[in-house]
Amino acid sequence: MNAEIIAVGSELLLGQIENSNATFLSSELSKLGIDVYHHVVVGDNEARLEKTVETALERSDLLILTGGLGPTKDDITKEILAKVTGRELVYDENTEARLHAYFAGREKKMTENNLKQALIIQGSYVFPNDHGLACGMAVDVSGKKVILLPGPPTEMIPMFERYTGPFLQQELHTKDQIQSKVLRFFNIGESQLVHEIDDIIESQTNPTVAPLASGGEVTLRLTVKGTDASENELKLEELKQKIVSRVSPYFYGEGEAQLHGIVVDRLQELKLSIGAAESLTGGDFSSTLTEVAGSSSVFKGAIICYSNAVKEAQLSVPQEVLTKEGAVSKRCAELLALNVKKLLKTDVGISFTGVAGPDSLEGKSAGLVYIGIAVNDNVEVFKLQLAGSRKNIRERAAKHGFYYLLHELSKEKVDE
Amino acid sequence: MNAEIIAVGSELLLGQIENSNATFLSSELSKLGIDVYHHVVVGDNEARLEKTVETALERSDLLILTGGLGPTKDDITKEILAKVTGRELVYDENTEARLHAYFAGREKKMTENNLKQALIIQGSYVFPNDHGLACGMAVDVSGKKVILLPGPPTEMIPMFERYTGPFLQQELHTKDQIQSKVLRFFNIGESQLVHEIDDIIESQTNPTVAPLASGGEVTLRLTVKGTDASENELKLEELKQKIVSRVSPYFYGEGEAQLHGIVVDRLQELKLSIGAAESLTGGDFSSTLTEVAGSSSVFKGAIICYSNAVKEAQLSVPQEVLTKEGAVSKRCAELLALNVKKLLKTDVGISFTGVAGPDSLEGKSAGLVYIGIAVNDNVEVFKLQLAGSRKNIRERAAKHGFYYLLHELSKEKVDE
Repeated sequence: MNAEIIAVGSELLLGQIENSNATFLSSELSKLGIDVYHHVVVGDNEARLEKTVETALERSDLLILTGGLGPTKDDITKEILAKVTGRELVYDENTEARLHAYFAGREKKMTENNLKQALIIQGSYVFPNDHGLACGMAVDVSGKKVILLPGPPTEMIPMFERYTGPFLQQELHTKDQIQSKVLRFFNIGESQLVHEIDDIIESQTNPTVAPLASGGEVTLRLTVKGTDASENELKLEELKQKIVSRVSPYFYGEGEAQLHGIVVDRLQELKLSIGAAESLTGGDFSSTLTEVAGSSSVFKGAIICYSNAVKEAQLSVPQEVLTKEGAVSKRCAELLALNVKKLLKTDVGISFTGVAGPDSLEGKSAGLVYIGIAVNDNVEVFKLQLAGSRKNIRERAAKHGFYYLLHELSKEKVDE
Repeated sequence: MNAEIIAVGSELLLGQIENSNATFLSSELSKLGIDVYHHVVVGDNEARLEKTVETALERSDLLILTGGLGPTKDDITKEILAKVTGRELVYDENTEARLHAYFAGREKKMTENNLKQALIIQGSYVFPNDHGLACGMAVDVSGKKVILLPGPPTEMIPMFERYTGPFLQQELHTKDQIQSKVLRFFNIGESQLVHEIDDIIESQTNPTVAPLASGGEVTLRLTVKGTDASENELKLEELKQKIVSRVSPYFYGEGEAQLHGIVVDRLQELKLSIGAAESLTGGDFSSTLTEVAGSSSVFKGAIICYSNAVKEAQLSVPQEVLTKEGAVSKRCAELLALNVKKLLKTDVGISFTGVAGPDSLEGKSAGLVYIGIAVNDNVEVFKLQLAGSRKNIRERAAKHGFYYLLHELSKEKVDE
């Protein structure tokens, strides 16, 4: 089965936003073993969208269209599909009910055009939208399958993950199963990682190994194809062990695991509470940690000590440290970690101080970062020299914080 | 003149990387007044690439292909173009010289396949690659223009900016200039905004009005075409005034302006310092505010009071308030804003408390948010009921914080 992904929206052709939907869907379809042969982007233009759909129906078994399901006049995807396939547009009761409930709940009045979002192509299978108003749908067209999804990734991605993905899985009913395992690494470059396991990558055919670098991390996707699920799983596990044994210091988790999620799990296991003192990162560390549902069981709070006055008054960093060694110093990081731990009565304290840039600070150049980690009575300070934009430096500093924290916590014992 | 952007590379169809080249090129072409009607992504497959190029030559005046110019076997773009257009591939002397110089400089020996990167389609105009090895080129094909650019954005973008852009400008020799203005709105849905100005959108031809919703915001892009730049600017400004007068409460800025950037500017104008007390948002507000370079001139710090213990100990919220009215209450938001302002000795205090979910808290359901804003002696609390995932609720709460803050600050006078 080969697929084509069609994004509808003039804003894409104007370069206002990226077609990240195509990237997400391609990666999901490849997991399902569906080959994607074409991405197409077309504007909110009836003639060109119609032609695009006709061409796609000739050459592809599966069409996924994103965008153009909204309430405004330039949202025409359903209308064109109905025209090309010679079907009626009808109201979907459930979606209509959701619309009314949505506006009732918000004491906003629903404008007439909103009802458009409850229209579906007759005979189509509906995907509910848990994060927005426009429903998605799947419809069979002369042996081909056409799927319509909303444009905003915040609506499309959860809809695909919860409804469309499983729906496709069922439709495929292939005997071969594609299974994959993603291994996650931090603090090692893609080229170095590939270099370390080059022979493994070369010699592998099933499972295959595909490296990918993004957001300062490197992942390896192991993909296996076979009829026996448990045998597939076994092959993946064997290969994983083989790889991890080579580069264990950098390996931190599998699948969707994220450094901050693992840190929360680990703190919960160890029954340790944590507090943070953030200067450089300005709240980025705490904000990321508290993205994890249930983080409140371990995270008590933080002091964002952006100004030296706050470092002094709230976190008792002596003035002479700030004047002599500076706010960006090993000593300051150490004190911030120890004192925030004491102030918030936690078992662990972590601190971030550094120069985010663009300008230098205290005669120190952008990218210099100190991360202090105090666990019980022991405190460590890690020094980094990061490159990149202000945003990158802050984000990567926070990520390194989670990474070093994991290393420090690995020294702790779970008390029974 | 209408254009089509064709990206060549299987990694795009596997979802390993995003087609950011198409986004960049679209935005550049629209500045040149060239309409982009199609984006296409096709893999490193001869038959499909050939068909894609043929289709594009039928429907588009300008083709820009990115990728597939490298030294490896799966780089086939030039070969296919030569085949479709019936031309020879010949070596470009300058590019060949650059290749030899590159490898000489690195004491690496050049492998035979590297020479492939000096091959150009006979009769084409060459764009040098200042950041890599594969040159770009432009070739005329039966009245159409075909441009080939390297895939890596680090090579393609500088090549376009320095060589391809100016080349196109010359080719166009149009007197018409395209100018556009982006108006930014918050706290109003796309459908409601469009509803409010429907008649304006309908009646406009030059400038045109295009709405776009993303990240909880709505933007309107006003685009005008004309030979006289200042007259264009005038038309845009007139239309802007007409629109803003209709929906002024929701309008907050133009172009790349962002709520948090405007808040920092406004605080600097007013010479007001700010501190935050973040429970619900866990540092998201402060982290966003401190993304702005120079924010340290107004932002002193914050207390992330995730646990009630910290709300009590650091921000003096009386226990009876937490037990009777709860941490998620108007009163708590009020006290947090007032007390963080006092604690950190700032002019403005802002607080966030609420239920991020997924679970309810204190019998209050996910999405209930209170934002407290204390400016000098005056304190306001804003109540919100947000929908969506935990992440969305937190992010949108922080954004609303900036939005309400802007409204409160608009009441303040700049003291001369």
